[in-house]
Amino acid sequence: MRSAVRRGAAMVVRDDVTEPVPSFGQALVQVKACGICGSDLHFVKHGAGMMALAAQMEGLPRLGLDPPDLTRDVFMGHEFSAEVLEIGPDTLGPAPGTLVTSVPVMLYADGVRDLSYSNDLPGGYSDRMLLSAPMLLEVPNGLDARRAALTEPMAVGLHAVNRSGLEAGHGALVLGCGPIGLAVIAALSLRGVEPIVASDYSPARRLLASRMGAHAVADPAAGPAFDVWGKEGGGRPVVIFEAIGVPGVLDDVMRRAPLHSRVVVVGVCMQPDALTPFFGIAKELNIQFVLAYTPDEFAASLSSIAEGQIDVTPMITGDVGLDGIAGAFDALANPDQHCKILVIPDAT
Amino acid sequence: MRSAVRRGAAMVVRDDVTEPVPSFGQALVQVKACGICGSDLHFVKHGAGMMALAAQMEGLPRLGLDPPDLTRDVFMGHEFSAEVLEIGPDTLGPAPGTLVTSVPVMLYADGVRDLSYSNDLPGGYSDRMLLSAPMLLEVPNGLDARRAALTEPMAVGLHAVNRSGLEAGHGALVLGCGPIGLAVIAALSLRGVEPIVASDYSPARRLLASRMGAHAVADPAAGPAFDVWGKEGGGRPVVIFEAIGVPGVLDDVMRRAPLHSRVVVVGVCMQPDALTPFFGIAKELNIQFVLAYTPDEFAASLSSIAEGQIDVTPMITGDVGLDGIAGAFDALANPDQHCKILVIPDAT
Repeated sequence: MRSAVRRGAAMVVRDDVTEPVPSFGQALVQVKACGICGSDLHFVKHGAGMMALAAQMEGLPRLGLDPPDLTRDVFMGHEFSAEVLEIGPDTLGPAPGTLVTSVPVMLYADGVRDLSYSNDLPGGYSDRMLLSAPMLLEVPNGLDARRAALTEPMAVGLHAVNRSGLEAGHGALVLGCGPIGLAVIAALSLRGVEPIVASDYSPARRLLASRMGAHAVADPAAGPAFDVWGKEGGGRPVVIFEAIGVPGVLDDVMRRAPLHSRVVVVGVCMQPDALTPFFGIAKELNIQFVLAYTPDEFAASLSSIAEGQIDVTPMITGDVGLDGIAGAFDALANPDQHCKILVIPDAT
Repeated sequence: MRSAVRRGAAMVVRDDVTEPVPSFGQALVQVKACGICGSDLHFVKHGAGMMALAAQMEGLPRLGLDPPDLTRDVFMGHEFSAEVLEIGPDTLGPAPGTLVTSVPVMLYADGVRDLSYSNDLPGGYSDRMLLSAPMLLEVPNGLDARRAALTEPMAVGLHAVNRSGLEAGHGALVLGCGPIGLAVIAALSLRGVEPIVASDYSPARRLLASRMGAHAVADPAAGPAFDVWGKEGGGRPVVIFEAIGVPGVLDDVMRRAPLHSRVVVVGVCMQPDALTPFFGIAKELNIQFVLAYTPDEFAASLSSIAEGQIDVTPMITGDVGLDGIAGAFDALANPDQHCKILVIPDAT
């Protein structure tokens, strides 16, 4: 079968990948749609740096995760929906033909393995892949495969809001309106937060922010987003979502944030960053770093999309087959052209 | 009267300070003891840098505070106890002779002024000073002036613990056992937190940490404090108090802290600092910057000391008259020699 893999610092399509066979507890699925994530772009170019940072880190429980060997091909694609083809022996699972999605991990007796970046386990940039049957979520309410593939990034936004400490009466300022910033806006909007002020240099992304629920948008080229918050916020306490992930942003946020603000860092800055602790101290800021989501949040994200509470349609700005992934990675560098590009492996 | 003031980048003693006269709402007091704070040392050497950082900052309400003019003398000393000499006209207040302390601010019709660093208002490094009568707290239970002067730094520790999000079942790791780290340890101990692991390069400070309530101490020269926490913590969640305030510490904490830890930054790092957001993201760390205390916490701190719940005696390692302040600033650079030095203006 075919998979797009990272080889060196590029994406290449292989047509010699061994067809996976489901064991006990597993399902073989046909990938129907898989979103391209910003961290995939980063991983292809800077995978070695990411591995080096991860290797320095202590304090994380071992989950049975071994970091991928970057001298070998790495399978990718973790924002997928798929159709069940076959359930493994002696295994309960949805009937063949069922549209499903899953948190991108595989359960094993000795732990959990990540489906995002693996040398061995094909991910969503493949014709077919294995999933753990107990992790499968049936896509409800007739939701199509394309929108179901947005479950994962929207869950990231929901998790960020759930971990934000946001309380009744708080407003929100979302800095950066890429897919994750938009997912945060959607989750804030669903929770009824007012006002939501969103900021991005791109007019297209500001328009998307409004469609996902932002009450006001700011163009940082025209002045600090905090000034727009100052006009729109009505003096409310604000939770600031940093969804840009570029060095220097956090320091600027700390310099401008109001007294006692909470800053949720959901943008993934992979480089070292310089900041001024004094700004945090003088204003007693709280910085909450967040990552990913819980299985419950993933399921809630799917439900919100399927029930029409969150309409992800405007976020999907293109689709490609496996052969188009390398080009799509390039196209995603232009924020005015694209938001989320879906890979449709079986597109004809 | 006499005051020790910052002039240029040094402390000098003036004997030509105009004797203050209490107006309505004010009290004239005789300073009995005033602790030397680490931020005073920093202010004398790096006052211009502190002012420049503060001037860059937005988002702070104007409290009627004007930054001091560093080309003029600056009065200092904000950890004081004092004896009431005279209450202003038509003003309610404690009888002359009463031993008092106060949050180091003065109330005015147009706002609040800081008594820490002022061109105009003599602070605790003075024979006498004015205080706002409504802010005065009588020192209870026969507590002496020397220990009462520790109310302020101990309130900083109480505030840090109150703002830490520490919950039942959490342990604590305190990095740095200067006066603020020790104040944190005392507040943790009073709350019954177990275990408290404290770390400092100085044997004298590690001994003080034990006396203030630490259950185990770590010498960073012998290995990471987190390793000692790993042995002593019994697998409990940990709240980490960063009371060192030197560039690089926060990044090291983020690299080593367990998943989902909360880090309370109570050490005042005045320089820019480099950190690795990826460590925070991968472990969903929470960083709470804290500063100072509320008036309630200040009063609770005084009560804890006066009632014998917190014994600050071991922290007081020396005293000087006004003429000894410059030398004491130098001596405090050696952590094995001193913890808290008190200025006793009326020492004979």
